[in-house]
Amino acid sequence: MNQKNDNTPNAMWGGHYSTAPDSIMQRINCSVDVDHVLYAHDIAGSIAHVTMLGDVGIISKEEANQIRDALPKIAQEIADGQMVWNPALEDIHMHVEMRLKELIGEVAGKLHTARSRNDQVVTDLRLYVMEAMEHVVGCITSLQRSLCNRAEEYAETIMAGCTHFQPAQPVTLGHHLMAYVEMLERDKGRMRDARRRMAQCPLGAAALAGTSFPIDRHQTAKLLGFLEPTHNSLDSVASRDFVVEASSSIAMCAVHLSRFAEELVMWSSPLLGWIHLPEQFTTGSSIMPQKRNPDAAELIRAKTGRCMGHVVHLLTLLKGTPLAYNKDLQEDKEPIFDAIASLDLCLSAMRGMVDSFGIHAEKMEQAARAGHSTATDLADWLVRTLRIPFREAHHITGRVVVQAEQRGCALWELPLAVMQTVDARITQDALQVLDVRSSVASRTSYGGTSPRMVRAAIVRAREVYGLEE
Amino acid sequence: MNQKNDNTPNAMWGGHYSTAPDSIMQRINCSVDVDHVLYAHDIAGSIAHVTMLGDVGIISKEEANQIRDALPKIAQEIADGQMVWNPALEDIHMHVEMRLKELIGEVAGKLHTARSRNDQVVTDLRLYVMEAMEHVVGCITSLQRSLCNRAEEYAETIMAGCTHFQPAQPVTLGHHLMAYVEMLERDKGRMRDARRRMAQCPLGAAALAGTSFPIDRHQTAKLLGFLEPTHNSLDSVASRDFVVEASSSIAMCAVHLSRFAEELVMWSSPLLGWIHLPEQFTTGSSIMPQKRNPDAAELIRAKTGRCMGHVVHLLTLLKGTPLAYNKDLQEDKEPIFDAIASLDLCLSAMRGMVDSFGIHAEKMEQAARAGHSTATDLADWLVRTLRIPFREAHHITGRVVVQAEQRGCALWELPLAVMQTVDARITQDALQVLDVRSSVASRTSYGGTSPRMVRAAIVRAREVYGLEE
Amino acid sequence: MNQKNDNTPNAMWGGHYSTAPDSIMQRINCSVDVDHVLYAHDIAGSIAHVTMLGDVGIISKEEANQIRDALPKIAQEIADGQMVWNPALEDIHMHVEMRLKELIGEVAGKLHTARSRNDQVVTDLRLYVMEAMEHVVGCITSLQRSLCNRAEEYAETIMAGCTHFQPAQPVTLGHHLMAYVEMLERDKGRMRDARRRMAQCPLGAAALAGTSFPIDRHQTAKLLGFLEPTHNSLDSVASRDFVVEASSSIAMCAVHLSRFAEELVMWSSPLLGWIHLPEQFTTGSSIMPQKRNPDAAELIRAKTGRCMGHVVHLLTLLKGTPLAYNKDLQEDKEPIFDAIASLDLCLSAMRGMVDSFGIHAEKMEQAARAGHSTATDLADWLVRTLRIPFREAHHITGRVVVQAEQRGCALWELPLAVMQTVDARITQDALQVLDVRSSVASRTSYGGTSPRMVRAAIVRAREVYGLEE
Amino acid sequence: MNQKNDNTPNAMWGGHYSTAPDSIMQRINCSVDVDHVLYAHDIAGSIAHVTMLGDVGIISKEEANQIRDALPKIAQEIADGQMVWNPALEDIHMHVEMRLKELIGEVAGKLHTARSRNDQVVTDLRLYVMEAMEHVVGCITSLQRSLCNRAEEYAETIMAGCTHFQPAQPVTLGHHLMAYVEMLERDKGRMRDARRRMAQCPLGAAALAGTSFPIDRHQTAKLLGFLEPTHNSLDSVASRDFVVEASSSIAMCAVHLSRFAEELVMWSSPLLGWIHLPEQFTTGSSIMPQKRNPDAAELIRAKTGRCMGHVVHLLTLLKGTPLAYNKDLQEDKEPIFDAIASLDLCLSAMRGMVDSFGIHAEKMEQAARAGHSTATDLADWLVRTLRIPFREAHHITGRVVVQAEQRGCALWELPLAVMQTVDARITQDALQVLDVRSSVASRTSYGGTSPRMVRAAIVRAREVYGLEE
Repeated sequence: MNQKNDNTPNAMWGGHYSTAPDSIMQRINCSVDVDHVLYAHDIAGSIAHVTMLGDVGIISKEEANQIRDALPKIAQEIADGQMVWNPALEDIHMHVEMRLKELIGEVAGKLHTARSRNDQVVTDLRLYVMEAMEHVVGCITSLQRSLCNRAEEYAETIMAGCTHFQPAQPVTLGHHLMAYVEMLERDKGRMRDARRRMAQCPLGAAALAGTSFPIDRHQTAKLLGFLEPTHNSLDSVASRDFVVEASSSIAMCAVHLSRFAEELVMWSSPLLGWIHLPEQFTTGSSIMPQKRNPDAAELIRAKTGRCMGHVVHLLTLLKGTPLAYNKDLQEDKEPIFDAIASLDLCLSAMRGMVDSFGIHAEKMEQAARAGHSTATDLADWLVRTLRIPFREAHHITGRVVVQAEQRGCALWELPLAVMQTVDARITQDALQVLDVRSSVASRTSYGGTSPRMVRAAIVRAREVYGLEE
Repeated sequence: MNQKNDNTPNAMWGGHYSTAPDSIMQRINCSVDVDHVLYAHDIAGSIAHVTMLGDVGIISKEEANQIRDALPKIAQEIADGQMVWNPALEDIHMHVEMRLKELIGEVAGKLHTARSRNDQVVTDLRLYVMEAMEHVVGCITSLQRSLCNRAEEYAETIMAGCTHFQPAQPVTLGHHLMAYVEMLERDKGRMRDARRRMAQCPLGAAALAGTSFPIDRHQTAKLLGFLEPTHNSLDSVASRDFVVEASSSIAMCAVHLSRFAEELVMWSSPLLGWIHLPEQFTTGSSIMPQKRNPDAAELIRAKTGRCMGHVVHLLTLLKGTPLAYNKDLQEDKEPIFDAIASLDLCLSAMRGMVDSFGIHAEKMEQAARAGHSTATDLADWLVRTLRIPFREAHHITGRVVVQAEQRGCALWELPLAVMQTVDARITQDALQVLDVRSSVASRTSYGGTSPRMVRAAIVRAREVYGLEE
Repeated sequence: MNQKNDNTPNAMWGGHYSTAPDSIMQRINCSVDVDHVLYAHDIAGSIAHVTMLGDVGIISKEEANQIRDALPKIAQEIADGQMVWNPALEDIHMHVEMRLKELIGEVAGKLHTARSRNDQVVTDLRLYVMEAMEHVVGCITSLQRSLCNRAEEYAETIMAGCTHFQPAQPVTLGHHLMAYVEMLERDKGRMRDARRRMAQCPLGAAALAGTSFPIDRHQTAKLLGFLEPTHNSLDSVASRDFVVEASSSIAMCAVHLSRFAEELVMWSSPLLGWIHLPEQFTTGSSIMPQKRNPDAAELIRAKTGRCMGHVVHLLTLLKGTPLAYNKDLQEDKEPIFDAIASLDLCLSAMRGMVDSFGIHAEKMEQAARAGHSTATDLADWLVRTLRIPFREAHHITGRVVVQAEQRGCALWELPLAVMQTVDARITQDALQVLDVRSSVASRTSYGGTSPRMVRAAIVRAREVYGLEE
Repeated sequence: MNQKNDNTPNAMWGGHYSTAPDSIMQRINCSVDVDHVLYAHDIAGSIAHVTMLGDVGIISKEEANQIRDALPKIAQEIADGQMVWNPALEDIHMHVEMRLKELIGEVAGKLHTARSRNDQVVTDLRLYVMEAMEHVVGCITSLQRSLCNRAEEYAETIMAGCTHFQPAQPVTLGHHLMAYVEMLERDKGRMRDARRRMAQCPLGAAALAGTSFPIDRHQTAKLLGFLEPTHNSLDSVASRDFVVEASSSIAMCAVHLSRFAEELVMWSSPLLGWIHLPEQFTTGSSIMPQKRNPDAAELIRAKTGRCMGHVVHLLTLLKGTPLAYNKDLQEDKEPIFDAIASLDLCLSAMRGMVDSFGIHAEKMEQAARAGHSTATDLADWLVRTLRIPFREAHHITGRVVVQAEQRGCALWELPLAVMQTVDARITQDALQVLDVRSSVASRTSYGGTSPRMVRAAIVRAREVYGLEE
């Protein structure tokens, strides 16, 4: 089977050739080191194809059965690590066909009737990515569940809600965690949309023009779990927007994870000390004996670059290439395989950390008190109580803040008398809104941070986003 | 109104400040040169907000009416070019509020109750991008209509269907054009999905935590044409995945256009001479008096780079930024504005060329005959007639091709006797399938290139993709 | 001059045309809104070209003088805002030539002898980018000077040297600032290399093949300040790697600035409180009256996305385009213009902040004491004193750290007796290395953080990097 | 050695840990599957480090010798495939140190004195990339040699010089090939500059702050072939601009190759038929028995996407990360390793094709005659002979072209009488410049396409670019 050591032309396509590929050609051209991953989908595709060929009578039922019975054996052999991968056989398709021939003889050659590697490979890849999208959506759902559980636990835990990385207004940790549930839900939406859109079966487009054999493309589409066949044969073999769309949705999700990862790194640093990660998710230093580094979080943050790079890879690949199939398209697999694997790993690692981090509630709340974070509450009180325009209330409060800054005290520590030098209408009543707990409790607008709203959001998320366990 | 020439602190947020921004700070911080584009959406948002404030009683009905009546005037002034843009006023929001104050006095300050620029700007941007997505979908639909019309005209016109830029099998020009209708339909799908997903109203998230005022976020969402309010206030002001998703869908569409643009460049070159572009879509050379360059097609191809760059810009922007709002987010507008404008322009230019290109049918068909493009038909004939495995038929045909190559003739010019030296079972009947017209006519599988299937595809596209005029 | 309202063909290249471009063609094709920026370089190029044409006798000296005398007037008119930009005249080159014809009549038509817009525009762009590289190098040098000055001021100021955003070992603020001087020096190196490499003059490559006129390309190259002429005419008009190289060096520098910007954001937050930015480099909030947001730093961080996007734009533009000139190349200007302007702005804003930030030395030093940051010093003491392998010393120290953690105290607060329970060989002497000041002072290896080494580094940088003022 | 199956803490850094990493942590954290590639450089670094430690007396000479003697054995074991890779040992550094301990006992623990993995890994990577840059420069030089050889062979072979993919002016194939020699020379320049800039040794920066041991960083730098040590310890462990610069230079070179690859695809297609690629660099089709696809060229074109993606990956990785070392940096290796390997493969494959393609000279020249490609020569003749402005000559020629187009003949086939109806001053003499050979011969400006200039360019390139064999 090995063709490496001689100059005989390729057994599959070399009928009009007099020699074998150059060794460097073989190296750049061979894809089986990457596309062997598709073996199960390739064989599933072949089973559907041969079933259809038999059903419509292009080959006999007996031939169809013979081929169909042998294919699962090859899948098993590959699963068992028994396939000998041979660069001269280029790709997974030729390996399967060659092995089929070894098993059942010349009739194996009937499998490729009314089919080309052009429609075959893109069918395989669609099946693979569809499955991966489903898998990743499942991983995201698991992470959302973990986030909801921790959010429930911390629905009343005060933390500094930051803008510009400065304490802005107090929020609850539960509310913060639920923000990521929302982002992840949109990521899932994008992946589901991508999956639905790619669920058209290209099998039967053949090389590019369709075929003169009376094939039933609706049957193969259905057998493989697609919604329908693709509608244009040239488009079928030439297009890879489904890979780009999948990788874009992955990159976006990776960016979302990078934001949370950044927060875990900062929150768990002794510099902030809001949370601690368990030993199992940190590593030590080879030189500094005291370190517990949040490596998993940092690596999640870093893998954004990888996922973004893959989007650029794929778009660049397609740019300016004429129809229909070009060999360029062979380079579509590594980036999407790696993007999927990377996101999968990041989601698992993130879930591990979400499930296990501990908090230092006191430090969290203390930070929430920093930076006069309830100044807006005072301004709102002025608006509500004095019926003055918000803009005016904002100015009055700004001057009160200056008083606190000059005294080096927190806003809520400022004596009422001092406040009244700024505006005499401020009363004892105003001081109550300056407490971080009242502030948080008061944010009852839809989607707001009050514990009541956070709990409602958790209930809603579990129901609407399918997070019940 | 101008604050540039003195050191007085900012009138909107400078209550606790003693001085104005540094001049370089003003330059890097000011965004009104970009975000003034949002004025209509900003004012629409304010009208909805103030209506709600009045309805729920946070401000009086009279105050609400006073503000609501003045806002459209400001929109009109801006539309008429009468607004004096002032860098010290930073952004569109402050310009509108300041002008409002000039028009109606201190009551203007009540508009910003229970609102922050953080939720305001992202509301504006969502409205803008939602509208743009709809607009672009309309442009794509127009291009699809043009493609369908030309496809109908050329449903029987033979051209070389290429793989690897080599004649592979004959197809029809109509079939080729319809491939782009399919790609564009998926692009529309992505844009519609993006639009639907972003149709959640962030207004009322306020700075980041929600508000203690009893606002009705469902009302403002409804008034502005959103499907619902967003569900988490932190997520509302911190997230921009909707911009990334929109720009990704645009980049993908740009890549699709780049492929067709590449083809137009090649087809219209004297080197191929398959089509000609009208003078209106070419330009001459400043030195070579004979040139008619396909500049529009080349520029469409080139603008892919721009659209891809914007995706990278936006993802990078968001990577690793902690919640909630960071000033980094201000940089989200230029890339999406330019992406939308660029794609709009490319779609119009492409449509202009599709509507007006002429063809050289003879050269097209001649190319289709090149490269033994009906060899597959012979192989298929062998399979059908002799009931031999495709793989064997492929080898026989390969050897027939070698005969033609050695004689320097086309496959269909090869004498039957010569073919029979390769395989004696080849008969006169086989020669008929070698004609490009019979080849094309025989490709009747679903989505195939036979004129009948192409016409059916046109009918289907017009119906299902909403292309009826 | 305006050709917009009629259908007459283009005056420059339309000799064989019967009509004007389509309006959409004009919109996509016109570049003068972007390339007018090149006017001074375009006119300088024309002056050099016409001087040479006269010197070698291709046109008469009188003609050459006539043209050369008129060109500076046009430059002045444009500088004075008197040029009427007309989209029908496409680009800066046609505007200048048309105006020249208005000024001096038909002889203006002799300027374009032995030249094409293809070599003209790339000459202009090289001149522009060469100048910009020099300018940006100057801006970086200014920033380095500011960093050195502040580093000198803080050569002994203790701060937490972090790895993984956790206090790792104490360093000095001066040492930290000098790290950026090193990064920026390499950025300058890349820009200078880029500038040198692009200093080849393409003028005289004409359309693509060179010319039959006896031009002197070495003369024009010299007149324009290039090192030499380019060596291949096709390469001259087809290549834009110089733009890619310039934009890559800019993106890298932007990434370096983003790292420092991130640090300024974190250090200046009340959460850390290590430094404060002056009011002039922060802004307030429209809703939260207490905020002082580090907008400039955040925007510097964000502009990385923009600069990276431009690299992708430019590489994508060029990918897969055949030689020689393609209209795609017209899209090379906006990204490099914006990259240069953005980096310029970021460098100025960063310098403004470096010059003006204040520090809270106590908080900085306090953070340096956190996280047992001198544990390595103890391990090193064990190695030096007991002559045990570092790996063993690392383990002993790790166990000492656990003791400190269990007691909730700092490493240097741990009683000697407790340390000795871990290893009896630890003596009073060891405690001295646990002080952050002795730790810092001891790091005297080349490039290390001891104040002495930092001062030496400042002296070296000023000398070697040309930072003397 | 295997730590996978129990919960004992890490042997290298786990002194203060009570348990082992979580399994998902181990998966995301372990890098040895990637960084084992660095083994030879890692061991070289350790040899230099231990030599210095012994020389300055930090460890005894005997200890130094003991360690130094054992290290090459480990390198040999790895080269021989005898190392058992263990995910629990995380990276190549720990594998080497653990094996060292097995070989020589506790003294192995002295190797890591005054060193951290932070400075160790970046030393390894610099050595690796420096070596790779040199290797790639060698591969480019080989390709340039091949291009020069073929250029010499085809210095007089006429082909259509294209702009906008349309015949513009005749050039020679030799001239066209030499354009790539120029591009590649600049690519080499960028790689050499990158190599020189990265030749600073970070070893001795330790974790981040330098060390208190009296190490000699200049000695280790020299032993390892660096030009000097780095100048700031924080910068040393935190920076990766050298990886970005290397990958940017690779991406640019890949883009250059993509342009030539695009041309090989088009030229070798039966549609143009200018060249043919040998069978060894094409592959057949699994369905179309006649195909000879230029897969190698297409894959070279495609790999641009990969190389561009890696640049984005690396820049994104670094964006916004604070000093000094962060675990994110671990993700720097895969992209640069793959970029190097990909470019290496592309260069070899391209060289294989350059060495072996054959030409169809007649078709090439025929295309050169298409599209009135010598029209500029007529315009130039008018300028020279009639001393009229070029702009006027351009218009006259444009009208002559229209005459040829209307008659459907080539410019040089147009009767003189017809030309004279356009302008009576055109004489018989003018017709001579319309021949493609005279046209090419006349382009004698420096860098022009005349065979004489092309030959001079080849001589110059061989000398100046170091291409002599």
